[in-house]
Amino acid sequence: MTANILFAATANRWAEYETPLSEALREAGVAFDLRTDFPPDEVDYIVYAPNSEVQDFKPYTRLKAVLNLWAGVEDVVFNPTLSVPLARMVDHGLTQGMVEWVTGHVLRHHLGMDAHILGQDGQWRTEVPPLAQDRRVTILGLGELGRACADSLARLGFPVSGWSRSAKSLPDVTTYHGDDGLAEALSRADILVLLLPDTPDTTDLVNADRLAQMPEGAVLINPGRGTLIDDTALIEALDSGRLGHATLDVFRTEPLLPVHPFWAHPKVTVTPHIASATRADSASRVIAENVRRGEAGEPLLHLVNRDLGY
Amino acid sequence: MTANILFAATANRWAEYETPLSEALREAGVAFDLRTDFPPDEVDYIVYAPNSEVQDFKPYTRLKAVLNLWAGVEDVVFNPTLSVPLARMVDHGLTQGMVEWVTGHVLRHHLGMDAHILGQDGQWRTEVPPLAQDRRVTILGLGELGRACADSLARLGFPVSGWSRSAKSLPDVTTYHGDDGLAEALSRADILVLLLPDTPDTTDLVNADRLAQMPEGAVLINPGRGTLIDDTALIEALDSGRLGHATLDVFRTEPLLPVHPFWAHPKVTVTPHIASATRADSASRVIAENVRRGEAGEPLLHLVNRDLGY
Repeated sequence: MTANILFAATANRWAEYETPLSEALREAGVAFDLRTDFPPDEVDYIVYAPNSEVQDFKPYTRLKAVLNLWAGVEDVVFNPTLSVPLARMVDHGLTQGMVEWVTGHVLRHHLGMDAHILGQDGQWRTEVPPLAQDRRVTILGLGELGRACADSLARLGFPVSGWSRSAKSLPDVTTYHGDDGLAEALSRADILVLLLPDTPDTTDLVNADRLAQMPEGAVLINPGRGTLIDDTALIEALDSGRLGHATLDVFRTEPLLPVHPFWAHPKVTVTPHIASATRADSASRVIAENVRRGEAGEPLLHLVNRDLGY
Repeated sequence: MTANILFAATANRWAEYETPLSEALREAGVAFDLRTDFPPDEVDYIVYAPNSEVQDFKPYTRLKAVLNLWAGVEDVVFNPTLSVPLARMVDHGLTQGMVEWVTGHVLRHHLGMDAHILGQDGQWRTEVPPLAQDRRVTILGLGELGRACADSLARLGFPVSGWSRSAKSLPDVTTYHGDDGLAEALSRADILVLLLPDTPDTTDLVNADRLAQMPEGAVLINPGRGTLIDDTALIEALDSGRLGHATLDVFRTEPLLPVHPFWAHPKVTVTPHIASATRADSASRVIAENVRRGEAGEPLLHLVNRDLGY
């Protein structure tokens, strides 16, 4: 049987994926027909970008699974027309890129780099930063990305705390969970990293009350989702000095409008959703493996829990 | 026998070290008398800062060893009045601090952070950096510091090359040595980190010829010694575009004069010799252990090879 695979994403994604995805499918030993256009009732799998034209899954009567191109599934998981399994992307390249970005920006704030990058004024300020062992980092969200970042930071010597909705255990990381655990995790966050998914439960999670639980002068780093933060509360916390700095990679509206106050705020660094990206080579291998599994009747990798929303 | 230990350094060092060093000596089980002043012919050990008043060791007739407070020994190793063993400082805190600084600044350049830190102009530039696996880092100098930094960078996924005077072998690092090896190591340096000691052999090692062997647009990071670089050649390489950036923590004259062209150069980041520092707690334990060894007739740790100069 040939698996008919619809690639439902923008044209530039197709340009990026056509070759590596075809190769990965061949390497996986799958008989396939990969196209950007099919009659809906002939499609077996959809490789899916939530911003594609496919928003109504009902006409896809023989569909076996939707394979999301990205880690975030918030724009598809509650689609009421979707009745087949949904797999999110867990891409080695995405994880690795996130580890590099988070480790780099935690070190940037830990070492106080900005004072030097922005202050080449001839003054010899010889204050040596403390060691990582004296800088506490807390990561909210212990999925694939959060766990990998926690591991990288712990290996550099930072005392790392991690928080997740349900109890988890990680080597070299102090873990917390639930509402009580969140206050405790925040109280240890000299540097706080947000790597939670965007779900109804996490919207505005970092609000004024939560910011007030962090140590005075703490730094917030958000490579997760723009909805995790109450933006107004964040700016107030920066202005009052409660928070020392915020480095933000994701926003409620992207691109962030040039007039948005984040750009001009002296205590905010905006980065344009570049913390990490799915890499076509490694992501194609994940998609191909899931098609192979689907055809072989094996359980798919990285299935989304439709109740939890991630 | 009581060991008479002269602490020969500035008054603020004494303020920093008196308590932790006394504690460390007690913990080491040494009978000691620690002071900043002794008749020279009663001194058994000198805990030594090369910028202290002690420059003539001849009056110290019963001296057993000089224990340097810092890693760099260039200002004492060739002192002709020194005839007893000289130990340099190998401090866990110093090594760890250097690993954090080097890892942080390599990631800073790898991720292109400066473009965002300096360019909060409302423009949404979505170029995602490559993964560490596609950014080659070369470290010149594979002593305690170089090895620890190489290990940290390799664990983050960077392909790391290391060069040293004599052949060395390290896990996960491609090693080179000697003159031929240097050209090869430089040719792989998208980012070059200098962690060589200051010796007659390393003075001006990074000159115009060596800079020309690096990839176009490469980044130079120097937390080692100021003498390693021919400063004029470096500025020419930056101006011509051969080199993309230089982050310099050490200089021939420190503090770097406010009029020095490095401060104003758009492709140079000056940091004020803060990459790492000896930490009194951990350094005191190293000194105490060497006094214990000296009193027990055991070989000292971290002895300097007076011929090589490090």
